[in-house]
Amino acid sequence: MAKQEVKKIVLAYSGGLDTSIILKWLKNEYGCEVITFSADLGQGDELAPIREKAFATGADKVYIDDLKEEFVRDFVYPMFRANAIYEGHYLLGTSIARPLIAKRQMEIAKIEGADAVSHGATGKGNDQVRFELGYYHFNPAITVIAPWRDWKLNSRQALVNYAKKNDIPIPVTKKRPWSSDRNLLHISFEGAILEDTWAEAPENMYVLTKAPEKAPNKPQYVEIEFKNGNAVAVDGEKMSPAQLLAHLNFIGGEHGIGRVDLLENRSVGMKSRGVYETPGGTILREAHMAVEQITMDREVMHLRDSLVPRYAEMVYNGYWFSPEREMLQALIDESQKTVNGVARVKLYKGHCRTVGRKSETDSLFNLDFATFEKDQVYNQKDAEGFIKLNSLRLRIRSLQAAAKKK
Amino acid sequence: MAKQEVKKIVLAYSGGLDTSIILKWLKNEYGCEVITFSADLGQGDELAPIREKAFATGADKVYIDDLKEEFVRDFVYPMFRANAIYEGHYLLGTSIARPLIAKRQMEIAKIEGADAVSHGATGKGNDQVRFELGYYHFNPAITVIAPWRDWKLNSRQALVNYAKKNDIPIPVTKKRPWSSDRNLLHISFEGAILEDTWAEAPENMYVLTKAPEKAPNKPQYVEIEFKNGNAVAVDGEKMSPAQLLAHLNFIGGEHGIGRVDLLENRSVGMKSRGVYETPGGTILREAHMAVEQITMDREVMHLRDSLVPRYAEMVYNGYWFSPEREMLQALIDESQKTVNGVARVKLYKGHCRTVGRKSETDSLFNLDFATFEKDQVYNQKDAEGFIKLNSLRLRIRSLQAAAKKK
Amino acid sequence: MAKQEVKKIVLAYSGGLDTSIILKWLKNEYGCEVITFSADLGQGDELAPIREKAFATGADKVYIDDLKEEFVRDFVYPMFRANAIYEGHYLLGTSIARPLIAKRQMEIAKIEGADAVSHGATGKGNDQVRFELGYYHFNPAITVIAPWRDWKLNSRQALVNYAKKNDIPIPVTKKRPWSSDRNLLHISFEGAILEDTWAEAPENMYVLTKAPEKAPNKPQYVEIEFKNGNAVAVDGEKMSPAQLLAHLNFIGGEHGIGRVDLLENRSVGMKSRGVYETPGGTILREAHMAVEQITMDREVMHLRDSLVPRYAEMVYNGYWFSPEREMLQALIDESQKTVNGVARVKLYKGHCRTVGRKSETDSLFNLDFATFEKDQVYNQKDAEGFIKLNSLRLRIRSLQAAAKKK
Amino acid sequence: MAKQEVKKIVLAYSGGLDTSIILKWLKNEYGCEVITFSADLGQGDELAPIREKAFATGADKVYIDDLKEEFVRDFVYPMFRANAIYEGHYLLGTSIARPLIAKRQMEIAKIEGADAVSHGATGKGNDQVRFELGYYHFNPAITVIAPWRDWKLNSRQALVNYAKKNDIPIPVTKKRPWSSDRNLLHISFEGAILEDTWAEAPENMYVLTKAPEKAPNKPQYVEIEFKNGNAVAVDGEKMSPAQLLAHLNFIGGEHGIGRVDLLENRSVGMKSRGVYETPGGTILREAHMAVEQITMDREVMHLRDSLVPRYAEMVYNGYWFSPEREMLQALIDESQKTVNGVARVKLYKGHCRTVGRKSETDSLFNLDFATFEKDQVYNQKDAEGFIKLNSLRLRIRSLQAAAKKK
Repeated sequence: MAKQEVKKIVLAYSGGLDTSIILKWLKNEYGCEVITFSADLGQGDELAPIREKAFATGADKVYIDDLKEEFVRDFVYPMFRANAIYEGHYLLGTSIARPLIAKRQMEIAKIEGADAVSHGATGKGNDQVRFELGYYHFNPAITVIAPWRDWKLNSRQALVNYAKKNDIPIPVTKKRPWSSDRNLLHISFEGAILEDTWAEAPENMYVLTKAPEKAPNKPQYVEIEFKNGNAVAVDGEKMSPAQLLAHLNFIGGEHGIGRVDLLENRSVGMKSRGVYETPGGTILREAHMAVEQITMDREVMHLRDSLVPRYAEMVYNGYWFSPEREMLQALIDESQKTVNGVARVKLYKGHCRTVGRKSETDSLFNLDFATFEKDQVYNQKDAEGFIKLNSLRLRIRSLQAAAKKK
Repeated sequence: MAKQEVKKIVLAYSGGLDTSIILKWLKNEYGCEVITFSADLGQGDELAPIREKAFATGADKVYIDDLKEEFVRDFVYPMFRANAIYEGHYLLGTSIARPLIAKRQMEIAKIEGADAVSHGATGKGNDQVRFELGYYHFNPAITVIAPWRDWKLNSRQALVNYAKKNDIPIPVTKKRPWSSDRNLLHISFEGAILEDTWAEAPENMYVLTKAPEKAPNKPQYVEIEFKNGNAVAVDGEKMSPAQLLAHLNFIGGEHGIGRVDLLENRSVGMKSRGVYETPGGTILREAHMAVEQITMDREVMHLRDSLVPRYAEMVYNGYWFSPEREMLQALIDESQKTVNGVARVKLYKGHCRTVGRKSETDSLFNLDFATFEKDQVYNQKDAEGFIKLNSLRLRIRSLQAAAKKK
Repeated sequence: MAKQEVKKIVLAYSGGLDTSIILKWLKNEYGCEVITFSADLGQGDELAPIREKAFATGADKVYIDDLKEEFVRDFVYPMFRANAIYEGHYLLGTSIARPLIAKRQMEIAKIEGADAVSHGATGKGNDQVRFELGYYHFNPAITVIAPWRDWKLNSRQALVNYAKKNDIPIPVTKKRPWSSDRNLLHISFEGAILEDTWAEAPENMYVLTKAPEKAPNKPQYVEIEFKNGNAVAVDGEKMSPAQLLAHLNFIGGEHGIGRVDLLENRSVGMKSRGVYETPGGTILREAHMAVEQITMDREVMHLRDSLVPRYAEMVYNGYWFSPEREMLQALIDESQKTVNGVARVKLYKGHCRTVGRKSETDSLFNLDFATFEKDQVYNQKDAEGFIKLNSLRLRIRSLQAAAKKK
Repeated sequence: MAKQEVKKIVLAYSGGLDTSIILKWLKNEYGCEVITFSADLGQGDELAPIREKAFATGADKVYIDDLKEEFVRDFVYPMFRANAIYEGHYLLGTSIARPLIAKRQMEIAKIEGADAVSHGATGKGNDQVRFELGYYHFNPAITVIAPWRDWKLNSRQALVNYAKKNDIPIPVTKKRPWSSDRNLLHISFEGAILEDTWAEAPENMYVLTKAPEKAPNKPQYVEIEFKNGNAVAVDGEKMSPAQLLAHLNFIGGEHGIGRVDLLENRSVGMKSRGVYETPGGTILREAHMAVEQITMDREVMHLRDSLVPRYAEMVYNGYWFSPEREMLQALIDESQKTVNGVARVKLYKGHCRTVGRKSETDSLFNLDFATFEKDQVYNQKDAEGFIKLNSLRLRIRSLQAAAKKK
């Protein structure tokens, strides 16, 4: 679609320098109506000033929506039912937020009759993919404007010049030498000094977690209750999904839990270092696995485990709204029907560890075998036949190998 | 094979009460020659007194072998090349030792012309399977004697009575109320008080690790170098596999690293709680993954990751000497050719965490693209086509879904 | 359970010599009430004489149930939604019937208050496993009597002698030198002359299919309609599941379709040769895949395909009533929601082949892209970026490899 | 790279109208040296006239290479060791040829000091991806010219006009209304009338196979011998890989074997119908699986089978020269060490079917268990313990479910 044909754009707008410049640039280049949309996903910033800022920079209309409960209930929780983790370390805090932003942005585009959407993600990262796959899911014919891939403002100085020229205020606080993304599930850091993969990330980077060295000297125990694989209560207190995650973030942060330093593979093909703080999510995953330990069948668990890397890859690569993710989710959710119980997790100095788990309704451990005679459930003699038949193909193989040598 | 036909037995002998009773029982029941075999896998016990003890209890011949280097080099290392972990937590310390014991026991059986082998594993556990699958691999026609599945001594009291009647000394030190297994990779605990899955394991149970609360207040950094996926040096000092693992065990133990509490699924079908200390192994796995981060291709990693649960299952279930494990090992080893580099890991109060990684020879991160023009390797514009085509099937699906609704 | 404690047995009874001997043997050995159960799964035998025969041989009560519709609807169809095939060739005709027999047998046991069940499967085969896993699913405390594993009648002559001694009539028709199992999905053959794996199975073995050489010289085309992955009509005519399968069996049989000769791996560990005729099932699977071709998303299909071997293994090994099969079924069924359309298959001389497919509601092929501008759905230029980014990691790897060589 | 900077181009040249126009267009647009490269992969065309034609159309240098043996030995055979099949039907005949063409083309580029390569694949298909991933593997900095994505000649008429204007002879034979690609493994058809997915492909389209209706009325039996998973002899006669495949093509073609009609998913995201003739390959795959039946371990086979869809996807999508394909090949090749034996396959009227298999060196079927006592290898009693323990988790689950209901 040629620029002059675009009639109305919905922009995912954070209020920062970059999306402010984008807002102005869209107005300048497209000369059409631009609506900004800002989602409250628990990033902790004040969203109130955003409205004024957006209008000041040229927005024709402003949407600010609190999506925290939807975020945790419909995005974070399904993903945690799957124990999703990317490349063994990353809990997908940014990946899982993008589809929701795209979803709401497209709802607004529909309401407003917009024919284009825009975002501030660069052309080298994962987020552009996640946004745009989401956009196209909701409207395959939408026009997507990705300024970072289009414009000439390819240096920091060019951006600053453009901002000055267009009366966009430049924050006086010196930008920290990395970029970050925050929501209720995590905060991420990347870029700049982190590109030295050998150097430890500086302590002053961390936002959500105390340094383990400064965490309390006394461990804390937390009990988390799950229903159908979803956390519903902490230490006996029922909470909504967003409340619960916020609560675990606070506790986990105090104990310095959930820091991860990962050199990961982006969907666009290069490696990139990310540092993450996911205090609540780290506790939640450990607790969820603990309840699975006592309630989940072995073969269900092992088969499911073999599919987790693929599930995580789908989320990371932006395929949340895809038939393959939905198909895998059906399997995951089937596996969670019995995941009802309580985990007890010990938090201490940067680490959390399961120390107990129970399930009143679905424990598969040590049932009262009252309906059985002694040895009817498990007769040690049975093990002999079990081993004999399990070894049969191996014994035949050894016989065959021996015969071959002769 | 009827008892009277057995001519010579090789018994895996630890020198403890149980295998002492078994030794005597074999002599009594089978009336044939019994050879004991004890392996030094780094369990930390003095093996010297075992010889005398075995002869005193009726052994006709005694083998005591130091298998530590073979254990780490040929069993632990291949398994760590695969990042094997069982049910997300267990590093397979006992599982990986059993095949080596079986291998050496069968070598001795061959040397000695024995027609039977015996072990002290119970009929409810995993170890019987691991031993016997190993035995049958080396000689499909061997007679296996598993006294726990055969005899009538099914209570502690019956055993004690049998010991007294047969002049087997009963240790005066009161047995701790759990059973354990130790080698260079780990120590495990199970049974007794651990069967209350909700109760935390007692602090006095732990052997290899200091309580995190008593670990040094200062973090320690350790640098581990890998060649083809195998750890070869720590903090710049080359070490043999067994030396290296012992060294990491010491360091990790000081920092309280590697404690795991897992309710796991046994191969014989029931759930069982295990508590584990794997200080060196925990550090090793983290470090190995760190070097993979910078040297391993994305698709190789993701495909490999999906196979790790299956690999771990094979080891756990005793299928070390099996064509399927060997086949998977071929894939794993192919993936490790480029895993050359150094990881920097921070140890602190019960936890270890990667803080840096580098590879002089195989880094896939941020290469010097000197042979390229600007933007030839990565042109941000390319991302548009990438996203457009990746979304094509999703867009068609949405179009189709919309058409269907009409 | 000791023999004298068994009070009432339900026996899966076919009316043949073997289960007749078992019926008598149970009466003789257990001296308790024995109820026979015979299921009509479309094996084509007259079941009417079975009642009389059973009573004559000592049955205390006789159940004969027509389970054909349940068989196809609740067992065959779910399995065909998964395209299940064992070791690339076997359509699981016997495997899928056993769970249903076990289910009904256990229902009868419950109705009748029986404390034991029995079957005529040998101790070397798969069927014992399939029956018994089914029994235990419905009642974990049931006593299972498997005469072939217990009795001394281990030769054909011993059986005949036992029959004569107990006035069991021995069929005058000479038994064909192989055993077979038949139902609405297939007939299988194994044993005897088939054990020469190099010799072709004799033409006179086949029951359901004409020899391809004697099939019509003119091809026949058949159109099969699917809804949610289930076949619902043939050549425009709606049919119940059992009717439809019977119809395809007839057509397929005329054209000599569905013969398979497979040396397969049994769940008990040895290899065994099976010859199968599955005329209707072979056509059904081909047609199902054809409709999937036009209605199923690529990633859904590829991920699903990677799980089919595991699904087939579960069915073959007897794990129909297991949480892992149910979990996988949830994924399969999710994938089938859009599998609506018609396949056109050509049948000729022993083979069937898709020649057309269409879907009015769910085609993902060549949609009318009227809502799009020209080139908006697919712009050839996009392929460049797609390839550039997909090759990025490969290019980096080649750069790295080149650098390493220097 | 700007057009004027390109110094020398190697073009994959078939001699047909399209690549002739491309050759001229490259000369016109780039004004630099253009070298043509034509590979003999067994497409059956005369390659001799190509040289003259290329020079006449403006080529500065001409390469014509016979790659048939390399094609079958190093590309087709490794792929057939994996039983690769795409979406259940396609034997990947075109997919596997592209990497070899790319390899040789890049060798020539290196020899000639060319800085660019070009091909005639369109921007909507798979082949562009396969070519270019290959090119980038061999030289990440190569300039790739894909005229179909670049030029304005987007209609048949535009091409014809361009040809006329540039004195390129237009074949008088009317082009058949579909495109095709042929090599020693297969011939493929797509486009035009095939886009009606419901209409049967016309009989006059087929090239390599007789219509099954016109195939001999007498079946033919063929015996194929495999060593390490590679076919080495047919009916007792040793042949080179290319000879063997050509021989099977002839035989298979006579019997009308290997026709496939598939609506498949392209790597670029849309569905596309392909019709294929793969006579020799179809026989080869069936025979290979037959020898695996008698020589391959069960768990090896099942695990391998779950990875075949992924392997096939790699080949289809053009990732032949990728670390993930090489990793999977290592697993496949490990699995093939014992695949030594002979298959007997019956060919008749469009279909081939295994009727026998044997292995003198590696049969796992029915070994002579002379070293065993009776019943030592397989004691039917063992099955009881096997079933009891395999059912344990299912029994516990049922107990738990029953308890929950109360």
